[in-house]
Amino acid sequence: VTVGFGTFTRDGGSPRLGFRKGDVVVDLGSGSLDGLLAQNRVVWERVTEGALANADAGDHCVPAESCVPLLPFTIADYVDFYSSLEHATNLGRLFRPDAEPLLPNWRHLPVGYHGRAGTVVVSGTPVRRPRGQALPPGADAPRFGPSARLDVELELGFVVGAPSRMGEPVPVGRALEHVFGVVLLNDWSARDVQAWESTPLGPFLGKSFATSISPWVVPMAALEPFRTAPATPPDAAPLEYLREEPWALDIALEIEINGHRVAATNARELSWSVAQQIAHLTVNGAHLRTGDLLGSGTVSGARREERGSLLELSWNGTEPFALGDGTERTFLEDGDEVVLRGVAGTGDDAVALGEVRGRIVGA
Amino acid sequence: VTVGFGTFTRDGGSPRLGFRKGDVVVDLGSGSLDGLLAQNRVVWERVTEGALANADAGDHCVPAESCVPLLPFTIADYVDFYSSLEHATNLGRLFRPDAEPLLPNWRHLPVGYHGRAGTVVVSGTPVRRPRGQALPPGADAPRFGPSARLDVELELGFVVGAPSRMGEPVPVGRALEHVFGVVLLNDWSARDVQAWESTPLGPFLGKSFATSISPWVVPMAALEPFRTAPATPPDAAPLEYLREEPWALDIALEIEINGHRVAATNARELSWSVAQQIAHLTVNGAHLRTGDLLGSGTVSGARREERGSLLELSWNGTEPFALGDGTERTFLEDGDEVVLRGVAGTGDDAVALGEVRGRIVGA
Repeated sequence: VTVGFGTFTRDGGSPRLGFRKGDVVVDLGSGSLDGLLAQNRVVWERVTEGALANADAGDHCVPAESCVPLLPFTIADYVDFYSSLEHATNLGRLFRPDAEPLLPNWRHLPVGYHGRAGTVVVSGTPVRRPRGQALPPGADAPRFGPSARLDVELELGFVVGAPSRMGEPVPVGRALEHVFGVVLLNDWSARDVQAWESTPLGPFLGKSFATSISPWVVPMAALEPFRTAPATPPDAAPLEYLREEPWALDIALEIEINGHRVAATNARELSWSVAQQIAHLTVNGAHLRTGDLLGSGTVSGARREERGSLLELSWNGTEPFALGDGTERTFLEDGDEVVLRGVAGTGDDAVALGEVRGRIVGA
Repeated sequence: VTVGFGTFTRDGGSPRLGFRKGDVVVDLGSGSLDGLLAQNRVVWERVTEGALANADAGDHCVPAESCVPLLPFTIADYVDFYSSLEHATNLGRLFRPDAEPLLPNWRHLPVGYHGRAGTVVVSGTPVRRPRGQALPPGADAPRFGPSARLDVELELGFVVGAPSRMGEPVPVGRALEHVFGVVLLNDWSARDVQAWESTPLGPFLGKSFATSISPWVVPMAALEPFRTAPATPPDAAPLEYLREEPWALDIALEIEINGHRVAATNARELSWSVAQQIAHLTVNGAHLRTGDLLGSGTVSGARREERGSLLELSWNGTEPFALGDGTERTFLEDGDEVVLRGVAGTGDDAVALGEVRGRIVGA
């Protein structure tokens, strides 16, 4: 069942805070999720219990299909990590074929960078194919035009609730006190733009045109039963400030294009935990703010069908894959609709993260 | 004379919008600069004229020395560019000694990346030396500890006022309609942390601990008389969307450590203009938001004493330079106080950007 807190509107009214459980949304009053985010775990759990009781009793409930989800919270800073071993390894194999695929820093720290907070959008928002500069193979000057290598990245997004104080690193063992919950995240990427622009300062316009998130933020407490060991811990002995019992979340993830499943993997493939990411992010004195969004990085497994991006699925465009409707893809075409899904558990106890949906509109 | 809009407090009161001219601040009422920023150039110029008249008449004026400057506006996204040819060339010489110093993309696009908006602070805020991971020379595993290579970067910061719409690129010829004004910016950098973490996704914790800006945002109109040609345009024929008559601002800039001037350069060294940076930033459909902060990148000139970072001044630590008080520096020591200053013009018509001040506190 889909559960989570979000912000919605009905019949063109002003934004309201809601808790979705399955087919209903409990209406928790006017405003967005921002106010609840800024509280703490004790309040979050009390409000969650109350909302669950309302949902079960049918109190303050409206049909989910009558609710238009809005961006659930105001994004403060958006950081995107790179925490799946198989994804980082695949990208190394593709772009540094003559070298060790994994860069030396990857096993020692959760590599990440800042993305554009202002272009995070809610599921359902159409994504316009970006224009930009790219260097055609063999050319010595860039061309300008619509991206020819538009891609998705299948990720989790962790939502920071309680802030921390500037200058005070958050210990790894206390990091989860700051995390309100989880969304699915599609880190749309224009690979040709990204390849040309990214040296030496990293991705910029190849990513900044849009990042989509699911509308209902699943509280961390709801995912507690699905803690498990990661497929591969990053390192046998990380530095002290990153040390904890390795853990991950057992969440089945998939990518669907035009109704056809093209990849299925699991969040267990994330080697670095969100607790380690937060300990790292704050160890230099940077603080967390309410509304910080932490992307996990693309989740990829070892097998081909477990790869969380088209870049990997098509091996940089060299191996087209079948959609199942008689067509093939390397990267996205105009009109394609991408849906990411995530579910923890099975049967009556399953917790669905909902979906992130986006259709590609021509440049 | 120092001019500009900012947010201040007096006697522990709530934030107020102010216009500083020299030794006085015109009190423009409660609130921050955010509201004025969100207007447009017509309103900005009308309010500026009114504030100047007030300052000259002594109306609503309080002594500047009685005002405690606050962060003048809420930072939306913070982007840092890399638009000084000499700086980019110096970094190439230092870190890729066997290759062409300038990377191929530099002449075709204003290279940039997103920084951390949440840790932008106002001048006067102490800067704690960050701790982090770094790879000692010759080592095969990182060590953790206080940064040993703490640095400054001398930059301008352009402040976005009027927003643009997602999906609608801002033409280069209309970009300045969105720019409210200019601050000085110190992009503090921990070079050892940055070197180890930055592949493949760019700077992260080496920069995210603090970025300082001057408190009084100088309106663009006040700098109009100081438009000039850049020292070096980036390229003879940039792509169409970046094409304009090359221009820069003639602003003398300097770095002072503990009262001793260690570098002096000029904003003419910025090859890419803020109009080109905005045209580039939005060409993929990303929009501007009120409060976006666009760092110019470190401003360096061709001569040694014109280099805008200690990394360049000390040639990556290999050439200590004298402070003038009998001591030498390669990078910053605890207790050092750094001041950046900027002035356009001379004599009675001079416009001062004020200063960015920060003292290093031990880790």
